[in-house]
Amino acid sequence: MISEKMRELVANGSAIRAMFEEGKKMAAEFGAENVYDYSLGNPSVAPPKEVNDAIKEVLNEDPVFLHGYMNNSGYDDVRQSVAESLNRRFETNFFKRNILMTVGAAGGLNVILKTLLNPGDEVIVFAPFFGEYKNYVDNFQGKLVVVDTEKETFQPNLEDFMKKITDKTKAVIINNPNNPTGVIYEEKTIMAISEILYKAQNAFDHSIYIISDEPYRELVYTDVEVPYLTKYYENTIVGYSFSKSLSLPGERIGYLVMPDELDGADEIIDGANIANRVLGFVNAPSLMQRVIQKVLDVRVDVSVYDKNRELLYNSLSDYGFEMAKPQGAFYMFMKSMEEDDKAFCQKAKEHHLLLVPGSSFGCPGYVRLAYCVDYDMIKRSLPAFEKLAKEYQ
Amino acid sequence: MISEKMRELVANGSAIRAMFEEGKKMAAEFGAENVYDYSLGNPSVAPPKEVNDAIKEVLNEDPVFLHGYMNNSGYDDVRQSVAESLNRRFETNFFKRNILMTVGAAGGLNVILKTLLNPGDEVIVFAPFFGEYKNYVDNFQGKLVVVDTEKETFQPNLEDFMKKITDKTKAVIINNPNNPTGVIYEEKTIMAISEILYKAQNAFDHSIYIISDEPYRELVYTDVEVPYLTKYYENTIVGYSFSKSLSLPGERIGYLVMPDELDGADEIIDGANIANRVLGFVNAPSLMQRVIQKVLDVRVDVSVYDKNRELLYNSLSDYGFEMAKPQGAFYMFMKSMEEDDKAFCQKAKEHHLLLVPGSSFGCPGYVRLAYCVDYDMIKRSLPAFEKLAKEYQ
Repeated sequence: MISEKMRELVANGSAIRAMFEEGKKMAAEFGAENVYDYSLGNPSVAPPKEVNDAIKEVLNEDPVFLHGYMNNSGYDDVRQSVAESLNRRFETNFFKRNILMTVGAAGGLNVILKTLLNPGDEVIVFAPFFGEYKNYVDNFQGKLVVVDTEKETFQPNLEDFMKKITDKTKAVIINNPNNPTGVIYEEKTIMAISEILYKAQNAFDHSIYIISDEPYRELVYTDVEVPYLTKYYENTIVGYSFSKSLSLPGERIGYLVMPDELDGADEIIDGANIANRVLGFVNAPSLMQRVIQKVLDVRVDVSVYDKNRELLYNSLSDYGFEMAKPQGAFYMFMKSMEEDDKAFCQKAKEHHLLLVPGSSFGCPGYVRLAYCVDYDMIKRSLPAFEKLAKEYQ
Repeated sequence: MISEKMRELVANGSAIRAMFEEGKKMAAEFGAENVYDYSLGNPSVAPPKEVNDAIKEVLNEDPVFLHGYMNNSGYDDVRQSVAESLNRRFETNFFKRNILMTVGAAGGLNVILKTLLNPGDEVIVFAPFFGEYKNYVDNFQGKLVVVDTEKETFQPNLEDFMKKITDKTKAVIINNPNNPTGVIYEEKTIMAISEILYKAQNAFDHSIYIISDEPYRELVYTDVEVPYLTKYYENTIVGYSFSKSLSLPGERIGYLVMPDELDGADEIIDGANIANRVLGFVNAPSLMQRVIQKVLDVRVDVSVYDKNRELLYNSLSDYGFEMAKPQGAFYMFMKSMEEDDKAFCQKAKEHHLLLVPGSSFGCPGYVRLAYCVDYDMIKRSLPAFEKLAKEYQ
C-alpha cells in the first residue's frame, strides 16, 4: 500500500524503534533509574528563563499578527534582527533578504536542497555523518557521496575529498561542531576545503555550494573557534537551529543564511522562499519567530554538558575505551570493542546501556553516546561501562 | 544555479509577487483604505481568547518537556485527546495511534503523499482546486489528474470522475468545504464518490485512498452538514489544520487521521511517522500541540465571516456578477466578466480591487475573492465593484 521508498525506511526504522521499545520495557522491568539511555540527542538542560518570559511578552502583540501568516520567508523584522545579530558576532554583512526563517535546521536543509538539486546531482558528506542527510538528499533524487575522515581525529580526508568531486557535485554538507563525533573542524581545515572547492569550481566550470549545518555552533567546550564559513567560501549557505542553543528542539525554529555573494543569489533566495511553501512548511512557526527575536543573545548553560563530557570521557578512557575527546556538540564517538558495532550495542544493552551503532552514521566500528543526559545517570552508569569493558579484556 | 523545477516555480511565482508588490505600491499611492485586497486567505477574525490563555497555562509545564522532542507523531496525550474529540463529534472510533500531529494541513498532505506515492502514481483533484496540490503531488513525482465539476454548482462531475480513474490512480483529494468555491459536497455526493471508488478498487484490484483536506470544516454558514468521510469510505485519510478554526495559520499546527480500517493501516501509520521525520518536519511544534489540546472545542466567531459573505454576495449579485453562494470556507468564486480571467483581474485592479484569477485554481473564466477581511473594507469596496460591472455592460 505504501511507496517502495517508504517501505524500505519502515523496515530499517523498525530496528531502532524495537530498541526504543525494548528500552522502555527494560525501564519497566529494572526501574528507570537502572537503565542508561545514551541514544537520543534531546537536550537535557532547561531552556533559559528568558524564553518563557519572551513568550509571555509577545502575547501582548496583536493576536491576528502574532498567530497569522506572514511572508513565507518569515517576519521582516525578525529576519532583520537575525541578520544584525550575525553581523555583530561574525563581522558579516547580511540583511533581512539573506535570512529565511525555517521549521528547524531539518526544514532548512530540505528547503535548500529542494532549491538546488536536480535529480542525479551529488551531495558530499564526511563520514561519520548525521544519518538523516541521506534521506534529505534522497527526497530530491540526489545522490549522497561519502568522503572518509582520518581515524583518530575525524578531520576530513582531503585527498579522498578531492577524488570524490565530480561534474555532478552540487553541494557539500559540513556539520560543525560535528554530530556524531563532537569534533570541530578548525580554520585551517575549512581553508583547505575552500581551496579545493574553488579549484573544483574552475575545473568543472560550475558552482559548488557548501551547506554549513550548524545546530551545535554554541555548544563548544574549548578555546577552538568555530569558523563562520561564509567568510572563507563565497558559495556558502548556513543552516541554523535554536534546538540546542536554547533547548527548543520540539518547537522547530531555525533559519537559513543565503549571502549576496552566492552565485545566483537572487534565484536561490527566491527559490528557497517558494520551496519553503511548496514543501508544506509554509513558514516557520509564527509565535516562536517573535520569541527568538527577543532572545538572540541568550544561551543555555553549556557548563552542564561540559561537566558531563569530562566525567564520561575521563571515566571511559580509564576503563580502556578509545575515542577522540569531543570539543563541541553533546556527542562522543567511541570505538566499538568488537568489529561489529551492532553486536557491541547489543552487549552494552545487557548492561542496560543504550548506545547507537556507528553504522547509522556511515561509520561502522564505532558507537555514539549522547551525553545530554542527567549527570547522576552518568554516575550510575559508570559501573556498567566498566563491566562492559572487562568483558572484552 | 537552482534546479529546473524551482526555476519554473520562481518564474511563475513572480507574477503573483509582482501583483502583491503592486498592491503595496497602490496602498502607498492611494492610501491603504482605498485599496481592496481580496487576494489572501489569511483569517481576519482574532483567535479566541482561550488560545492565549492556554499558552499561559502550558508555560507552567516542565519546560524541557514543553519545548522538547517527543515521538515524531506528536505527544501521546495530545493525540489521544484529538482522537477522543473526533469520536465525540463524529461517532468515530479513533485512538491515539490513528492521529499524527502535523506542521499544518500542508505538512500533513506532504506526509501522506510521501507515504503513499510511487513516481508516476496519479492523484485526482476536482477543479477548481487549491493550486498547491499540484506542487505537493509533484514533490513525489506523482501526476495530478484534474476532474471537471458542474458549472454553476461546482459539484464533482461524476461521469468525468469515472473516466479519469486508471490503474495508476492512488489517491483522490477532496477539499470540503471547498477552496476556492466555498461550496460544500453534501452526503449524497460523497456517497456517489465512494461508490465509484469501491467499484474502481475492485476493477483495478488495488487500493485507492481518499485524502480529505478539511481546514475549513468549521467554517460553515448553512444547515448543510459536512460529512465525515471515514464513515463513508474505508480508505479515507483526513488532513486537518487549526489555521482557520482557531485563526492560527502562522503556527503550523494540524493533524492527520489514519483509521484502522485503511488497507495497510499499520504500514501507513508507521510510514507517515517516518515521513514526518525525513521530510524535515520532525514533529508538529511542541508548545502549540499542548495548547490545542486545551482548546479542541473552541472556535473563532464564524458569524463575522457570515456577515461579510451576505453583504458581498448580495451586493455583487445586484451589480450583475454571477457566482454560487458560498456555504462554507471564506471564499467566493465569481464568473469573470470576460473570457480572460487574468485580463479581468487587471481591469479590477484599475478599480483598486485585488482578486485572484481562476486559472490559479485550474479553472479559467472565474476569479476568487477571499472575504476574510474587514467588513468596512467590503463596504468601501462596493462602489468599485459596481463601476467594474458597468464597464462590461
